[in-house]
Amino acid sequence: MVFDSDDTEAVGTAKVQIAMRYDDKNKQFAILVIQLSNVAALLLEQDQKVNIRVAVLPCSESTSCLFRTRPVEASDNLVYNEVFWVSISYPALRQKTLRVDVCTVDKSHLEECLGGAQISLAEICRSGEKSTRWYNLLSYKYLQKQNRK
Amino acid sequence: MVFDSDDTEAVGTAKVQIAMRYDDKNKQFAILVIQLSNVAALLLEQDQKVNIRVAVLPCSESTSCLFRTRPVEASDNLVYNEVFWVSISYPALRQKTLRVDVCTVDKSHLEECLGGAQISLAEICRSGEKSTRWYNLLSYKYLQKQNRK
Repeated sequence: MVFDSDDTEAVGTAKVQIAMRYDDKNKQFAILVIQLSNVAALLLEQDQKVNIRVAVLPCSESTSCLFRTRPVEASDNLVYNEVFWVSISYPALRQKTLRVDVCTVDKSHLEECLGGAQISLAEICRSGEKSTRWYNLLSYKYLQKQNRK
Repeated sequence: MVFDSDDTEAVGTAKVQIAMRYDDKNKQFAILVIQLSNVAALLLEQDQKVNIRVAVLPCSESTSCLFRTRPVEASDNLVYNEVFWVSISYPALRQKTLRVDVCTVDKSHLEECLGGAQISLAEICRSGEKSTRWYNLLSYKYLQKQNRK
């Protein structure tokens, strides 16, 4: 059996599933953090708890833009199903980027983020329909290594 | 006339227009860098030339993954229309993230990146249809300021 190196590598990426919906009537943007798969690809130590942090950037001073899920014990597939609401007009929302980070908190309560994704909201739909998608996560340790090259 | 603070803020975001297409028959992924709008939002000095750098991450050792457009004199709207091709299988492509950076090169030939976007390819279409979209760019100066808070 011959392995294609690209395909074997393919197994290794952590992914997060996010749903988003804009309620035009109430000017509310909902971010539903559904689940995380293959978190081991982000080089976790054992017995760590993992939370997901989402930020609507750039952040307006007047509104909340940073949210965290509860921490969940690391395993292959972590289910969150937590919703966060942001009050924002549609034109302003379309200028934002949703940043999603996968983080752990160590015993001294310091948050360390292991990887993340950025989702441009430039073409987000205002119809109220929910868009549910998987997003690949880039490992920050990998990016640091790349930057040193 | 009353300004909604969210809407006035909305003017200020730089955006890049990118088209992507996967050719399943030849196992080739095409990235078309079309144009850049509102680059002033990334805090450019005058008389700078701006290029766009795209990277397909994580990078496989065996294939090219980093590409640069030609540098273009800064103005409101910068047109590139440059295509880059990556040889990659479809399962491998779906594990990748396209990172797009807007950069300048100073007189000592050092590249400085001003802002960027990340585009997950987890749900990229294999049908050969071209997907053309605008993506918001996050300013790296802004992100550095946020991280210091």
